[in-house]
Amino acid sequence: MVRVEKIEYKPVGARELLIEMKDLSELMIDLAYSATLFNSPELAQEVIEMESHIDTLTYLLSMNVMVAARDGDDAESLVGVTKVARATDKISDAAADMATIVLQGIGIHPVIREAFEKVEERLTRVEVKPESILTEKQLGELGLAAKMGVDVIAIRRNKRWIIDPEENETLQKGDVLIVRGAPQGVEEIEGVAKGTIQKLED
Amino acid sequence: MVRVEKIEYKPVGARELLIEMKDLSELMIDLAYSATLFNSPELAQEVIEMESHIDTLTYLLSMNVMVAARDGDDAESLVGVTKVARATDKISDAAADMATIVLQGIGIHPVIREAFEKVEERLTRVEVKPESILTEKQLGELGLAAKMGVDVIAIRRNKRWIIDPEENETLQKGDVLIVRGAPQGVEEIEGVAKGTIQKLED
Repeated sequence: MVRVEKIEYKPVGARELLIEMKDLSELMIDLAYSATLFNSPELAQEVIEMESHIDTLTYLLSMNVMVAARDGDDAESLVGVTKVARATDKISDAAADMATIVLQGIGIHPVIREAFEKVEERLTRVEVKPESILTEKQLGELGLAAKMGVDVIAIRRNKRWIIDPEENETLQKGDVLIVRGAPQGVEEIEGVAKGTIQKLED
Repeated sequence: MVRVEKIEYKPVGARELLIEMKDLSELMIDLAYSATLFNSPELAQEVIEMESHIDTLTYLLSMNVMVAARDGDDAESLVGVTKVARATDKISDAAADMATIVLQGIGIHPVIREAFEKVEERLTRVEVKPESILTEKQLGELGLAAKMGVDVIAIRRNKRWIIDPEENETLQKGDVLIVRGAPQGVEEIEGVAKGTIQKLED
């Protein structure tokens, strides 16, 4: 992979970096299987972007660990951190491999679909359009779980992912939402995010 | 790795194999992070065994796909299956890498523990002893979720894993249970499986 963006050192807590890497890698596995199942290039594309983001986090973590290690004892006790990070990176690479199958348009054999069909819930990716009633609303006041049976499991805002967003998170236009739910609810939320549905039914 | 066991071809549906590989790989990620967090060689060992089992499933799948492909069209539409399987295999390798950190006794730096401390639920591995009241009981009649707030997420019986066991699954002596729950419930189930606790409180 050609990397055009130089990753600059900045001091970030290893703790924060590891939490983000763990959450992202778990989400990626979920998205990657779903992308394969539903033959969804949109979900696959999110996985690829997350993979590149995890690469960045891995570099940042390595640099911060180096700066933190003052002597041999530090180094010994920090080497475990880099190993966990490397394993997380490998998990995310594997998820990206799976997503690539979809993006390369390799036909997914019926056998694969069947294997995943017992998954009753669907996963989708929707972008919040300016004209959507979701814009500038808090997740809690929207009550999507009660009204449509869907759950926003992640939000991508520019280059940042918010995993398991809180009730008081305010949605903004341009947000990309990863939503899980029953097939009907998933269809509804797609209309709501696009703005073609302008009212939430109770 | 030295492989002493020869894997013999047997006809198995690719569908069944893929379902098992997907479920196992997801469970492995969960177990691997937990093993790291709680510095648990027991959980780590389960991950290592699952990895070796997934290797076997990958071989079996490859052989079955070869036998299934009669011509070029078949091969084209089956190549996606082997790619998904390879990605699953890579995920399981990464989980094993993480487990190895624990088994090698590399000190886990406080930074890693903190990163996972927000996980309030614990994961544990218990073996059902002959004298345990769990022996020969169905999961449904035990009502562990209601009584102790714990959930049996997987059972290993000899070389077979049962993921997300049904209510009517009967526990047997020697079963290894992977249990998730609040710290207190996890401690209780450890006593119950060992046989030191002989009664379930309502």
